[in-house]
Amino acid sequence: MMICMMIGLMADTGHHLLPYLVAGAVLLAAAALLGLVFYGLGLPMVLAWLGTGIVLGNLELFGINALSFVKSDTTLFIIGEFGLALFMFAEGLEQNVSEFRRYWRPSVGLGLMGILLPSTLGMSFALGMGSLTGTDVPFESAFFQGATLAATSIGVSAMVLRQMGWQRSPTGRVILGAALVDDIVALILLSVGIEVIRSAGAGQPLALQAILQLTVFSVVFVLGIVLIGEWLMGRAYTLLVLSFKFARRRFNSGQCNLKDITTERRVALLLYGTAIALGMGALAEVVGLSPIVGAFGAGLVLTPHHLRELWLPKASVSESTGVGDHEAEHRLAHELEKTLLPVVKVLAIFFFVITGAQLQLAVFADPTTILMGLGFSALAVLGKFWAPFLSVFTPGVDRAALGWGMVGRGEVGIVFAGLGTTLMLAGQAVIGPQVYGALLLMIVVTTIVGPIMLMRRLAKLNTEPQLGSGTSTAPTVEEPALSVRE
Amino acid sequence: MMICMMIGLMADTGHHLLPYLVAGAVLLAAAALLGLVFYGLGLPMVLAWLGTGIVLGNLELFGINALSFVKSDTTLFIIGEFGLALFMFAEGLEQNVSEFRRYWRPSVGLGLMGILLPSTLGMSFALGMGSLTGTDVPFESAFFQGATLAATSIGVSAMVLRQMGWQRSPTGRVILGAALVDDIVALILLSVGIEVIRSAGAGQPLALQAILQLTVFSVVFVLGIVLIGEWLMGRAYTLLVLSFKFARRRFNSGQCNLKDITTERRVALLLYGTAIALGMGALAEVVGLSPIVGAFGAGLVLTPHHLRELWLPKASVSESTGVGDHEAEHRLAHELEKTLLPVVKVLAIFFFVITGAQLQLAVFADPTTILMGLGFSALAVLGKFWAPFLSVFTPGVDRAALGWGMVGRGEVGIVFAGLGTTLMLAGQAVIGPQVYGALLLMIVVTTIVGPIMLMRRLAKLNTEPQLGSGTSTAPTVEEPALSVRE
Repeated sequence: MMICMMIGLMADTGHHLLPYLVAGAVLLAAAALLGLVFYGLGLPMVLAWLGTGIVLGNLELFGINALSFVKSDTTLFIIGEFGLALFMFAEGLEQNVSEFRRYWRPSVGLGLMGILLPSTLGMSFALGMGSLTGTDVPFESAFFQGATLAATSIGVSAMVLRQMGWQRSPTGRVILGAALVDDIVALILLSVGIEVIRSAGAGQPLALQAILQLTVFSVVFVLGIVLIGEWLMGRAYTLLVLSFKFARRRFNSGQCNLKDITTERRVALLLYGTAIALGMGALAEVVGLSPIVGAFGAGLVLTPHHLRELWLPKASVSESTGVGDHEAEHRLAHELEKTLLPVVKVLAIFFFVITGAQLQLAVFADPTTILMGLGFSALAVLGKFWAPFLSVFTPGVDRAALGWGMVGRGEVGIVFAGLGTTLMLAGQAVIGPQVYGALLLMIVVTTIVGPIMLMRRLAKLNTEPQLGSGTSTAPTVEEPALSVRE
Repeated sequence: MMICMMIGLMADTGHHLLPYLVAGAVLLAAAALLGLVFYGLGLPMVLAWLGTGIVLGNLELFGINALSFVKSDTTLFIIGEFGLALFMFAEGLEQNVSEFRRYWRPSVGLGLMGILLPSTLGMSFALGMGSLTGTDVPFESAFFQGATLAATSIGVSAMVLRQMGWQRSPTGRVILGAALVDDIVALILLSVGIEVIRSAGAGQPLALQAILQLTVFSVVFVLGIVLIGEWLMGRAYTLLVLSFKFARRRFNSGQCNLKDITTERRVALLLYGTAIALGMGALAEVVGLSPIVGAFGAGLVLTPHHLRELWLPKASVSESTGVGDHEAEHRLAHELEKTLLPVVKVLAIFFFVITGAQLQLAVFADPTTILMGLGFSALAVLGKFWAPFLSVFTPGVDRAALGWGMVGRGEVGIVFAGLGTTLMLAGQAVIGPQVYGALLLMIVVTTIVGPIMLMRRLAKLNTEPQLGSGTSTAPTVEEPALSVRE
């Protein structure tokens, strides 16, 4: 596949820069303007970016084709994936690993229940619709449709948590943790679904071995992050520390004739952090998980302590007044986050806009599709919303906020539904055009309802101080989302 | 097997994420580590990034093929071009447009002389080599070879200026201005060269009309930026101001239930600025210029005054103590730059690494190629270095620094030489494999010598305070390259 790609490029050495410059400009400008308008309307800004994408992806309806490539272009997709990986890395950085670990029980519980409930409801609905309309819906197809209702898309909720300053609250931690569990379980469920259909089509027994292998790989990967991630991260940062020490020694001895080393350190810290995030994303991808799981893990296990040796003693540069080792570490972690955030913002916009562009409005022309879609939507919302009430019994977390935080489906659902249209069972697509449209509507509805309701709930909780958001350490009003870790 | 299946599934959607994650991680980590080492050695950090690229682009020599796609991949190329455009936008932002305009005379003089001298020397060398070795070098081919020596690559020098804090000095301004003139004139020269060869091959007269058209377009574009750019930028920012005022009004009336608006403003400012930079880059590309000319122009004409209305009156948010309108404007411009720089760093690295990866070391296997290349290199260095002594007579600028600042050729030269290998004249490539290798060596030598010598010269000048760097307003040692404009 790689080779084909290379040959294609060799044949066409002239890269076409212009459409990308135009797409980038349009997409970023629209996201900026709509973002402010949505903010003013009290809506989550991430919806503005998805909305920008829906408009860009459907300009063809108005006879404008110049930007249709946005929907399916590899370059824009990769930029967006880089952005999402870095965003999740930054979210991981915000978390204190031991604090995060403390909430593993509700996270796993909610993650599992949040898959089980909506996918069962969805499957029942698919079977029920079949007997209601008298069409034959095979169990395998219903199973796959149910699985499409399972996967929470963490990006949207994480953006809302950040916008509201809740990412480090117990509630925020459980949402992020559950979304990771959700991602892993949904992936396993999907591969079971594919395997069920493949074996049914071929009249063969289930290839349990492959499913088992994915499960084991995923669990080992996640346990690896949790158990030896911090140690590994220390090793990874040794290289940076060595390079930095060399530069600092030369700088201190006046050999490199430069006036400053803090800029170089900041750049190196940013580039190396970005590299680690992408590298761990790659590792997750190899295991079969989505890259954001790896990138989040990388951020989670990178603690301020790893950056300790990159601190500059007061003697060498006039940093601000003498600080203890402990504070120094945290300042560096804060520095990394602070330089990372603008990168995240610019690149992640591409992800959300492109996700929005996947939604083809033409699919919703048929009223039956809309009705079926609303049915799926109701069950998808209720299934996720009820899940925490059945699975989370930890004090100090808000179960309604947990529920709304898990509602948004986003890009994972789109990938699932799209896959279903390509799988065949007894000569028929597992997910036909009508069901596909209905599932897309479900994704639109949940992706809009989830963040709006989560934001409302958090805003309500913000006005009830006894429930606290846990982010009281936010240092200044200038930097509300960037709290120096305590 | 499951992994293969999952990767297969990804292939179905047409996107291959894994190689990009790996390439991004390797490239950024290497750039971070080598950057610190080069800093310690007193070498320009940009050479570390080019060096990373040279290594990555030649791993095939050691039997490693996994990352060869870096050389020619569209996605990485586009990311790099975005980065370079944003870098030049940030450089433009640093400039005060009227200060920059003040130096138009030496800029144009140096730009023209810096094209004339090395291309004439290069052409003479090509013809001389022909008569020396007894091979027939057509005038058209010699002309094209000479043109390859003409184009300065501003990215490398601008990085050194920034690293040394000289970008706002008179010398820095003339280097940037001359490089823009250089870019435009070199592009016209190249199109003349292509037209000369096309007409000679077809036995037709020169199509002067096409050349004239490009010339007029370019001049109109640049004059447009200089004359009405500020006014146009004001119009472009009206949309942002309107959206922001809506958001602020809602925020002030407590309608959107959010705790802060500065983060939203900062994000919108960053996204909109990025959009403007890419949009102007697109416009330049349409005219036939390189996008960096447009992006630089966008930064140049975006003055703090345009951001005036995005300031938040003290009443609405507890910003730092009351500041005048004038200071407020500059703070916003500073805020834009500050959030832009991390984005620039991460993305521009891709540009420099990919530029480095273009250099195929295998080309230098032949000693004659090396000799010829050294000849080209000497003339390329001398031509650019002498140019300011023949064309710049403005007091307060350092002509040696100007000369070294123009020496680096980089990616533009690679594109020129590459084009020459595809153009045919009387059945022969205008630039054969040997000459191509020699020109590549010239590009390597100038791209290494230029920034090293520029850095040395600036370091020397830094120790002679009477020549001043003009950046005495750098606010803190933490942020040396980010001076709030006076």
